Amino acid sequence: MKDIVQKLDLADETAGRLDWLGEFGKDSEGGVSRLLYTKEWVEGQHALKEWMESEGLDARFDEIGNLYGTLKGKNPNETVLTGSHVDTVTNGGRYDGAYGIVAGIIALKYLKKHFGEPVRNIEVVSMAEEEGSRFPYSFWGSKNIVGLAKREDVESIKDFDGVPFVEAMKNAGFGFKDNAEGRKDLKAFVEVHVEQGSVLETEETAIGVVNNIVGQRRYTVEITGQANHAGTTPMGYRKDALYASSHMIHEIISMARKVGDPLVTTVGKIEAYPNIVNVVPGKAIFTIDVRHTDKEAIVSFTEQMTAKMQDIAKEHEVEMNIDLWMDEDPVPMDQTVVELIEKQCEANGLNYKLMHSGAGHDSQIFAPVVPTAMLFVPSLKGISHNPAEFTEPTDLAEGVKALIGALYELGYKE
Amino acid sequence: MKDIVQKLDLADETAGRLDWLGEFGKDSEGGVSRLLYTKEWVEGQHALKEWMESEGLDARFDEIGNLYGTLKGKNPNETVLTGSHVDTVTNGGRYDGAYGIVAGIIALKYLKKHFGEPVRNIEVVSMAEEEGSRFPYSFWGSKNIVGLAKREDVESIKDFDGVPFVEAMKNAGFGFKDNAEGRKDLKAFVEVHVEQGSVLETEETAIGVVNNIVGQRRYTVEITGQANHAGTTPMGYRKDALYASSHMIHEIISMARKVGDPLVTTVGKIEAYPNIVNVVPGKAIFTIDVRHTDKEAIVSFTEQMTAKMQDIAKEHEVEMNIDLWMDEDPVPMDQTVVELIEKQCEANGLNYKLMHSGAGHDSQIFAPVVPTAMLFVPSLKGISHNPAEFTEPTDLAEGVKALIGALYELGYKE
Repeated sequence: MKDIVQKLDLADETAGRLDWLGEFGKDSEGGVSRLLYTKEWVEGQHALKEWMESEGLDARFDEIGNLYGTLKGKNPNETVLTGSHVDTVTNGGRYDGAYGIVAGIIALKYLKKHFGEPVRNIEVVSMAEEEGSRFPYSFWGSKNIVGLAKREDVESIKDFDGVPFVEAMKNAGFGFKDNAEGRKDLKAFVEVHVEQGSVLETEETAIGVVNNIVGQRRYTVEITGQANHAGTTPMGYRKDALYASSHMIHEIISMARKVGDPLVTTVGKIEAYPNIVNVVPGKAIFTIDVRHTDKEAIVSFTEQMTAKMQDIAKEHEVEMNIDLWMDEDPVPMDQTVVELIEKQCEANGLNYKLMHSGAGHDSQIFAPVVPTAMLFVPSLKGISHNPAEFTEPTDLAEGVKALIGALYELGYKE
Repeated sequence: MKDIVQKLDLADETAGRLDWLGEFGKDSEGGVSRLLYTKEWVEGQHALKEWMESEGLDARFDEIGNLYGTLKGKNPNETVLTGSHVDTVTNGGRYDGAYGIVAGIIALKYLKKHFGEPVRNIEVVSMAEEEGSRFPYSFWGSKNIVGLAKREDVESIKDFDGVPFVEAMKNAGFGFKDNAEGRKDLKAFVEVHVEQGSVLETEETAIGVVNNIVGQRRYTVEITGQANHAGTTPMGYRKDALYASSHMIHEIISMARKVGDPLVTTVGKIEAYPNIVNVVPGKAIFTIDVRHTDKEAIVSFTEQMTAKMQDIAKEHEVEMNIDLWMDEDPVPMDQTVVELIEKQCEANGLNYKLMHSGAGHDSQIFAPVVPTAMLFVPSLKGISHNPAEFTEPTDLAEGVKALIGALYELGYKE
């Protein structure tokens, strides 16, 4: 196994296939816009189906448009699944999602070539949607696979042009599943993805074996003070919403830095009102995004955080309204699969590290019902959701090798 | 004098005239939009001219559209001037500017009625423009009176609809002055204005005698860090432009509060980039507005402020660019006129306090060349540049009484 894996020369092939796939939805700004059920998306999925077939895989769509390519095993009732999502954000890059599909097809190609028929099916999936970029709904692909997608959640939603979800799906040649239940044959899911962060790059490590996907809470905070003339209102008369907000933001982020990894806390968005140079802001609205791999840690930090903010609001004599509008639990990966991947990386001489994912992925939809793990490769400068997304071809190849090892272990062993 | 002044019942008349003037440019949102050289402005000025004439004043426009109403004195070569600007901001109130004109006309009416011909001319002016709301130019009215207006400053400017200043002026029936020199006959200027702050209201004082108009510096600060994914970027890897900015804003405002009156410092405007909940801000831009009655204090505070900001930028490893784009010196009022007004207020039993103006006014254009002072009346909750601008009719009346006293002292004494 080690001899075969180490001799594989996958860099050009993987990078080349990503360039090829990136042509579907290539936009005028040099990025990729391949949104669910658009013309570009349909063409991309059909091109992937042809490629799968040309590599000798059994290729088929499910009802909603997830594309599968299967390397059939002796036991047709058990399937090891790999893959990722084919959709992109608007003006995204060539790697997010796409890399997991390309890595999967190439891995299956070489598994078939070197090891023949597996014990159970090994399948690559090009999932319909994960990003939530066209319609206000995310994980449409994976949720349909595991049986979490609900018809009523998408029946009345529309895209930014007013096109109904159902109409777009129909025009793309797809429809709802007759049977809303999830697949029962899945024995494992392994997703390969670009890190979208800079930990691997900074630590000069090719592969991240993900043992946890963070949970997150998102808040919108509205601070109400009093708008006043910047010249005629003495400092002592003011209820400055931006002064109070700045105090809070500085405290929140400082607290999060003190707590340290894996906690991350971000104030990404702020608006002041009326937002004029010579008016004391009467209102300020900002967001908070808190993530950690441990639910207890999220609860504990956000409790301290809101208590601190309440103190500051009181001190500044402003009103505060905190709205918690997202509260997602962390999703642990399957420890058996994680350890199996680690062992394979070691056995094949690949440079890896255990890490968590700070971003959401299809794997978090699979993990509660299927033994799931993820593999990361470095993202240049952590850039993602951007045309400048880039991973070195040699790193792309290492990721495929790690996937080959994992799928071999999961698919060819009794 | 005291008997006459105290018996005057001016509340309804003054408030009524402000309502009447507010009809010129009354907008659909309940405010007043009477911008320079618009139809509403032209109609308002001509209506004021008729009113001046009906009160027995000699009324005339100058070349650019300043309107004067004169109570002629024995000495025709000396003039005591009062008044303010007739233009408003977009969707402004009924008091800012307008009150100074209405107060002036009513003061002249009662001076004429009770004291007849003065020693020197007493004149009320309805100045063309102060706000800079239509064109990118402020104080067009007062600058023309004192000879500071320059033809080349307005010759190529346009309003938001692309209408050239010169064309708008021509269509309103006005043009440039032949002689760019300022008036030589002015012996004093006294402007009555709403405070646009809440000091008088809070201290339950009807009249503010202004001894100084603050100087101010305005800055735009640009902080550049690095935009990163909010989930995948550990706290220690970040260069968070909004975290650094919050630290600065909190420090700056706290420093200003510590220094205390009459220093005021405002961060009124902030923009974060890309301003998305799940992206660490790579850039933040905010403004700073610093005002004080003493130039040295402004210099000293802003030096400390920028030094502190540089320290914070260094600590946060972000780049900082500070642009000082406004630097106006404080303008002291004439101490002789100020004392004369104070004495008159005392003599007439009016409740006043000495104070500075935190906002800019036409008086700051006059003060360097003509002995100048200002009178303030309370603004409800300090609200200004807003349809909700309001001053109690009884307070409006007190301001007119103080003006009558001042103009009597300046116009009827040898």
